[in-house]
Amino acid sequence: MSNAPIVTAAAVIIGNEVLSGRTQDANIQFLATALNDTGIRLMEVRIVADDENAIIAAVNQCRQAHDYVFTTGGIGPTHDDITSATIAKAFGLDFGRNAEAEAILRAHYKPEDVTEARLRMANTPAGAELIENPVSKAPGFRVENVYVLPGVPRIMQAMFDGLKHGLAGGEPVQSVSIAAYLPEGLMAAGLSELQEQDPDVEIGSYPFARDGKLGCSIVMRHPDAARIEPIAGGVRKLMRGLGGEPLEDDA
Amino acid sequence: MSNAPIVTAAAVIIGNEVLSGRTQDANIQFLATALNDTGIRLMEVRIVADDENAIIAAVNQCRQAHDYVFTTGGIGPTHDDITSATIAKAFGLDFGRNAEAEAILRAHYKPEDVTEARLRMANTPAGAELIENPVSKAPGFRVENVYVLPGVPRIMQAMFDGLKHGLAGGEPVQSVSIAAYLPEGLMAAGLSELQEQDPDVEIGSYPFARDGKLGCSIVMRHPDAARIEPIAGGVRKLMRGLGGEPLEDDA
Repeated sequence: MSNAPIVTAAAVIIGNEVLSGRTQDANIQFLATALNDTGIRLMEVRIVADDENAIIAAVNQCRQAHDYVFTTGGIGPTHDDITSATIAKAFGLDFGRNAEAEAILRAHYKPEDVTEARLRMANTPAGAELIENPVSKAPGFRVENVYVLPGVPRIMQAMFDGLKHGLAGGEPVQSVSIAAYLPEGLMAAGLSELQEQDPDVEIGSYPFARDGKLGCSIVMRHPDAARIEPIAGGVRKLMRGLGGEPLEDDA
Repeated sequence: MSNAPIVTAAAVIIGNEVLSGRTQDANIQFLATALNDTGIRLMEVRIVADDENAIIAAVNQCRQAHDYVFTTGGIGPTHDDITSATIAKAFGLDFGRNAEAEAILRAHYKPEDVTEARLRMANTPAGAELIENPVSKAPGFRVENVYVLPGVPRIMQAMFDGLKHGLAGGEPVQSVSIAAYLPEGLMAAGLSELQEQDPDVEIGSYPFARDGKLGCSIVMRHPDAARIEPIAGGVRKLMRGLGGEPLEDDA
C-alpha cells in the first residue's frame, strides 16, 4: 500500500465568465473530490480566459507537470468556443471533423437542426479519443493525458463519472477532521509538535466562525488511516488541554 | 476614455483545502467582481497547494505578467501557514519581524495571549507595506505589485475594501446580458456575424437550464456602453427572428 505511486492532476478552467465574476465556478470542487476518490491528487488549478495563448500556456505547462489534465469550458457551438481548436495547437496536431463525433450529432438532432454551428462540436484534434456525453450528446475528447470537458456542471459531471473508471489512480487520501471552539493561535505550538512527530501526515488548520463563536478545524490527511490515528489522538488531547471539546467534523 | 490603459490582475489562491475539495473557494468571485468595479481585469487565477515551490512559481509568473497580483491564504499563526516566508523567497528578500505589525498584535491581544505562534503573523518580507485588517487585526502586506491577503473570506473582503482605493484601475468594463429560451446552436451563426461587426465587443454565449427549459444567455462586454448597444440590438433581433423572447438578465 504505502509504496503506491502518487498520481497527480491539474484542472484548467477556461472561461471569461468566471474571471469576470459573472459565474461562480462549480467544477473545481467536484473535480477535486471526485479525483481524490479515484486516488488522484489535484495539485493545481488554473482559470484562464477564452484566449488562445493563455489556454496553450496553461495546458502545456500542466500536461508536462502532472499525470492528468482536465479542462472545462469552451467546447460548445458558438464563436467564443475555441478550446478544441486551441488544444490541437497546443499539441501541434491537425484539427478537423471527427467522423464518429459527427455521426453522434447527426443521430441526435433532427436533420433540419444540424446547423454548421452544431457540427463545429464534431471537430477535434486528429487522433483524439471521444468522451461520451450522456446528457446532451456532443462529446468531449482526450489527447494523451489531457481530457477536454464542457463547462456546464451537470454535463461535465456526468461525463467525468463515465470516464473516471479508465483513470489509473494511486491510493486515495484518507482524512480526519476535528474541530474545537479554540483560537488557532493557541493550538499552533502543539500542532507544530504533532507535525514534527510525523511529517508525512499533512496537518491543516482552518479557522472558522460559527454561531458567533470562533473556532478551528484541524484536518489530517494521509493515504494510510493508521498513520493519521496517533496524530488525531494528539489533536484531541491538545484541545482538551486548552479547555476545548474536540468535535468530529464531517468535512 | 477609450485610450485608457488596460490594467490586469492575477489571483493566486493558496490552499490545500480548496484542492482537496474540502472547501468551496469563495474568494475568486469576490475578487473578480471587485476588481472589475475598480477597472482592473482579472486575467487568470491559480490555485496552488501550501507548497513553497508551487507558490513561488505561480507568484513569480503572475507578477511579471500582470499589473497586480492578489494572493489569499496561508498567513495565519500555524505551521502550515507558509505564504509570508515564501513571498520573501519569491522576491529574494529577507524575512523577519515587522515592528509595526508586532505593535498591532500586541495592542490587540492580552499580554498572556501573545504567543510565539501569533507573533509569527508579524513576520513579513523586508520593506513590505502592511495592509490593515479591520476584522481580526493581523495585517496582510504588499511587496511591489503583490498583495498578500488571508483566506478567510469575510476578513479578506474587508481588507480588500480598504486597499482598493489605492489601486490604479483603467476603465471598468460594462456588460449587457440578454437571455432567451433558445438553443445556442441556433443562435451561433447570427452571433458570429455580430462578433464580426465589432470584434472589440466581447460576446459570450452561456447555455443554461431553468425550470426544465434550455436557454442561453448572451453577455456583451466593453468599457464603452455605447459600443455594446448596437450589438445588443442585434442580439434581440436575432432572438426574435428565431421565435424567442429576449429577456434582460441581471447577470
